[in-house]
Amino acid sequence: MEMPAILRAMREPVEAALREVLDQSGAPPDLREAMAWSLLDGGKRLRPLLVLATRRLFPDGLDPMPAACALEMIHTYSLIHDDLPAMDDDDLRRGRPTCHRRFGEAMAILAGDALLTEAFAVLARAYGGTDDATGIAVVREIAEAAGPAGMVGGQVLDLLATGRAISRADLETLHRCKTGALIRAAVRCGALLGRADPRDLAILTRCADRLGLAFQVVDDLLDVTSTAEILGKTPGKDQAQGKTTMVTLLGIEGARHLGEALVRDALADLQPFGPQAESLRAIAALFVERTA
Amino acid sequence: MEMPAILRAMREPVEAALREVLDQSGAPPDLREAMAWSLLDGGKRLRPLLVLATRRLFPDGLDPMPAACALEMIHTYSLIHDDLPAMDDDDLRRGRPTCHRRFGEAMAILAGDALLTEAFAVLARAYGGTDDATGIAVVREIAEAAGPAGMVGGQVLDLLATGRAISRADLETLHRCKTGALIRAAVRCGALLGRADPRDLAILTRCADRLGLAFQVVDDLLDVTSTAEILGKTPGKDQAQGKTTMVTLLGIEGARHLGEALVRDALADLQPFGPQAESLRAIAALFVERTA
Repeated sequence: MEMPAILRAMREPVEAALREVLDQSGAPPDLREAMAWSLLDGGKRLRPLLVLATRRLFPDGLDPMPAACALEMIHTYSLIHDDLPAMDDDDLRRGRPTCHRRFGEAMAILAGDALLTEAFAVLARAYGGTDDATGIAVVREIAEAAGPAGMVGGQVLDLLATGRAISRADLETLHRCKTGALIRAAVRCGALLGRADPRDLAILTRCADRLGLAFQVVDDLLDVTSTAEILGKTPGKDQAQGKTTMVTLLGIEGARHLGEALVRDALADLQPFGPQAESLRAIAALFVERTA
Repeated sequence: MEMPAILRAMREPVEAALREVLDQSGAPPDLREAMAWSLLDGGKRLRPLLVLATRRLFPDGLDPMPAACALEMIHTYSLIHDDLPAMDDDDLRRGRPTCHRRFGEAMAILAGDALLTEAFAVLARAYGGTDDATGIAVVREIAEAAGPAGMVGGQVLDLLATGRAISRADLETLHRCKTGALIRAAVRCGALLGRADPRDLAILTRCADRLGLAFQVVDDLLDVTSTAEILGKTPGKDQAQGKTTMVTLLGIEGARHLGEALVRDALADLQPFGPQAESLRAIAALFVERTA
């Protein structure tokens, strides 16, 4: 599915900001090249878009772009490490050789480490220097979402679940950590930077949790229904690795219905925000309609 | 060499704080075990001690323990990733199997990622919640020291230098990034948390840079003069990997003299701080007298 114009226009400054981040990182040239290979590869930028679109719900606050970049850098590092031979052992990512296929394993490990670390430097440079607690709250939100109780914890649960059947409750926990935590953090950072009150923050957190689960349900669907050409990576990996997915638990139709119901509920959460939520609604729609 | 009593007394609360950090990380049990294996392995805790000892130079400020823990977590993650088969391929670390030998490569990669990410969560939880710019300044200091312009950049330079001769200037740049940056950050964080004025911060930064280079010179010496039993890891690796070191450039005696001169100058930097610098002096002495 083509990304709607409203989101394409939002994505352009994200690309420019990510390039700027690499230029200012002080990485030695070889490292910069490996970081850029994976960071500037035409990704959909869903997490940055969620930060920017959520920030738009609120009239005042801080610039959301540094948080948007930090989340994309962390997402990218997680893909680089996930693709390594010791992990998913993938050769292809977004239709191109994975970082370790292109630059070797050692450089890929270090490029991932560099992107993760620099994400926090980007946040601290942008939101530091003033006595405002918002910046460090954003650091905390992102570190906790990406760390052992969030994304990395989810990757460990995924590792342990490979090759054996798990319950729907365990699968939802795994998803909430592995992919949900970063999506939730994207929305919550947008809200924190817009100085959202606790009530709005709670509504948006629930909305983000629904979107996060919908995202993973669609991922599970695409793994069985798509092709390598459209997907840009190898499909059928879940089955090959003996993984429990929403499709193995609910079937293709059941998973499709669940994804649609989650996005419907997420859109209902956005009702009170009126026309300001237009770009956020467009992203929510993309979550079920995407094909890669 | 035995660690002096003044430092052993400072180290005990560090061990307790690191254990506490793991308990509060929310890591799934398997991940927690792998993180703990490497983090709680009887390391010397030089970086945490530097934070605590530098903070002691100043009467007021913030608690240095979270920054001390964060730096040790980042140091530990770097060792875990450095030991991986794709990097240094080490089986032994502090006399025990390395993380990947004990838990497998995938878990070791994730344990390293988790320690790095959680380090920033520790900082943000401890120093957040108040409108005080010091906390995010510490986040910035540590992220920049550990990232592509610091430690990770140095690891890339090390990777590229393996098997070929490099100049002394290039070797110093490599060391300043790979090991110096974190030592410098430890001292600077102690100073920032003690609300040091710019003049004291500059003096302590110079002192830390000298200690950082001395540390690496001694590392190079130990690699040729020590045994696996004392060192807790395999000696002779530099030569086996064809690495340029301070010993290949200056000889054993030359390197020893350089290390001693650097520590002498570092001690001179501490002169103006008087008796408050007692523990920092003890650490500086340890930098040349250490045997592992």
